[in-house]
Amino acid sequence: MYERFWQQAGDKSTIVIPGWQSMSYFSDAGSLCWFLEPEFAKEIIRLHKTVGNAVTEDRYIVVGTGSTQLYQAVLYALSPQDAVEPLSVVSAAPYYSSYPLITDCLKSGLYKWAGDARSFNEEGPFIELVTSPNNPDGYVRQSVVNKSGGILVHDLAYYWPQYTPIASAANHDIMLFTVSKSTGHAGMRIGWALVKDVEVAKKMVKFVELNTIGVSKDSQLRAAKVLQVVIHSCQYPTSLGSLFDFAAHLMEERWKLLRAAVRQSGLFTLPEFSPGSCSFLNRSFAPQPAFAWLKCQEPMEDCEGFLRSNNIITRSGKHFGVSPQYVRISMLDRDENFHIFVERLSTIHLRQSVQVEETDGGIE
Amino acid sequence: MYERFWQQAGDKSTIVIPGWQSMSYFSDAGSLCWFLEPEFAKEIIRLHKTVGNAVTEDRYIVVGTGSTQLYQAVLYALSPQDAVEPLSVVSAAPYYSSYPLITDCLKSGLYKWAGDARSFNEEGPFIELVTSPNNPDGYVRQSVVNKSGGILVHDLAYYWPQYTPIASAANHDIMLFTVSKSTGHAGMRIGWALVKDVEVAKKMVKFVELNTIGVSKDSQLRAAKVLQVVIHSCQYPTSLGSLFDFAAHLMEERWKLLRAAVRQSGLFTLPEFSPGSCSFLNRSFAPQPAFAWLKCQEPMEDCEGFLRSNNIITRSGKHFGVSPQYVRISMLDRDENFHIFVERLSTIHLRQSVQVEETDGGIE
Repeated sequence: MYERFWQQAGDKSTIVIPGWQSMSYFSDAGSLCWFLEPEFAKEIIRLHKTVGNAVTEDRYIVVGTGSTQLYQAVLYALSPQDAVEPLSVVSAAPYYSSYPLITDCLKSGLYKWAGDARSFNEEGPFIELVTSPNNPDGYVRQSVVNKSGGILVHDLAYYWPQYTPIASAANHDIMLFTVSKSTGHAGMRIGWALVKDVEVAKKMVKFVELNTIGVSKDSQLRAAKVLQVVIHSCQYPTSLGSLFDFAAHLMEERWKLLRAAVRQSGLFTLPEFSPGSCSFLNRSFAPQPAFAWLKCQEPMEDCEGFLRSNNIITRSGKHFGVSPQYVRISMLDRDENFHIFVERLSTIHLRQSVQVEETDGGIE
Repeated sequence: MYERFWQQAGDKSTIVIPGWQSMSYFSDAGSLCWFLEPEFAKEIIRLHKTVGNAVTEDRYIVVGTGSTQLYQAVLYALSPQDAVEPLSVVSAAPYYSSYPLITDCLKSGLYKWAGDARSFNEEGPFIELVTSPNNPDGYVRQSVVNKSGGILVHDLAYYWPQYTPIASAANHDIMLFTVSKSTGHAGMRIGWALVKDVEVAKKMVKFVELNTIGVSKDSQLRAAKVLQVVIHSCQYPTSLGSLFDFAAHLMEERWKLLRAAVRQSGLFTLPEFSPGSCSFLNRSFAPQPAFAWLKCQEPMEDCEGFLRSNNIITRSGKHFGVSPQYVRISMLDRDENFHIFVERLSTIHLRQSVQVEETDGGIE
């Protein structure tokens, strides 16, 4: 979806790295995050100041191989090494489907996935993940566990003005971001954390050191260049506007098309959002999330299977801790694929009716 | 150490990546390792064919964020998900100091560090890591556990002709390599595994997917370019020779200087190696490892502390599963630093004697 913006940006966003550059493990040997490229750190701070979506003052920046690695670094950093029981990790359902998989994949003795934050009632300390706007459903979120002993981790991957109004600068203790959702460069595998506590930041750095001995310098340098162009586009918009104007406009169009297709089909519902005022775009609009969180209407129970039979590949709600009546669909694919998707979705009702008549039973 | 070669290579090794390129998570969606750049895979195969150090036929290539990530991917792939006890992981001491730290850092229920392979006598299946040439001591190695049920993992990071004679193409089930030791590009964080069994390869891919959702495309593209230049340098040597000529020559010089300094000081010993015939360089030479594995002579017991007091920073043998009489020192630093190191080492005897006289006791 972001390709067109970057094509128009042209050479300004091109990175050139000679063979003899950035060969060492170290980026800034004396600094807390010794593998963080100083140029990239500078652009992260400038970007947050420009957009106004996060406080960077009194924060340590930890770079990661995507925010996925930083998520694991946070778990490692927050878990006591000498605990008898693994620390519980919870998030309100529907939650990002990778959280439970990543948390439990090595059967760690340090932490364990404990499911939906709303039904969590174990004793002792815990970690609550707050993804806001939420993946998969796009709602703005706050902590839901109403008890002490919890440490909050804010995954703000989607807290950018193309997806949701920027209400204020987020000011939490641990905040995770990624270029893949902000600029569209998923292939870089670059994320960053803003961390208030020095000991937590140090332990996160230690994890990234153990896990991958730092983070690709090439991608950090490229990310620095890309953020530079994004910031420049905010100050001196091109014919496409800033990156955020461009992407916000596209998301708005896509959500209109999606809602029209859902209406036409008559078989699904989508989340409804209230408009909010965005301090960055200087206008009020409703969230237009990176994912469509689609619900099949009764009596369909397996929305993923139903859509698959109609040549639409989605991820079932069961992976997100809720019913298979729900599915998640990316809204960030290339134009062509997105248009095929809404076209197929809008005509399902018709085709499905025909199929039901023919087989006298439907496909469930 | 490698910088001079890459400076001389000039523009040929420069990578240019426009902002709109390689934005997606996917490199080759249909392939087993969907995040492996096909260009990079091609150069890996060409490089091994050129050097003759590993068999690539009937192997799957899995790319990782350095071989460190691939090591964890292997542990994940080889450990049964439903085992009651974690799988034991062993390696003959002295072993790479990061192995125990990485293996145990998350207190995984899937695998656990079980120490020196030579004294391993537990029942049941296990993984034996064979690092050859070995980090830290440089010796060529083979499996040492003499019982069934073991799965061998070969870490061949140093099996390149600048460090050791290439006797034949390694032909093991699981082999790990990294650009940081072959071309000197540690900052890229790129490694690769050659894997015989398709199920093991698939599970490794799954791990990298869970851990970091793939591997930086930018660094893979850069690695492809760098390997291309290395291969070209083997076919059409410049005034520095091929990369391997250049690096082998430097290592030879450095080992001569190191051995002279050790002789002059009279306080240390180094491993002794027998010459072997190298099929790639077409000559016979003794190993000239990437690390000096230095042993302090009696009665010194804390070699690291002793050298630190002489302004030489090393890593104690205790981290490698042996006595603190040993230390590991990198032989791959920049020329300037290497020369300071050998200079300091060669004069320790003299200065130390003075210190002993002054304090009437020495520093232990």
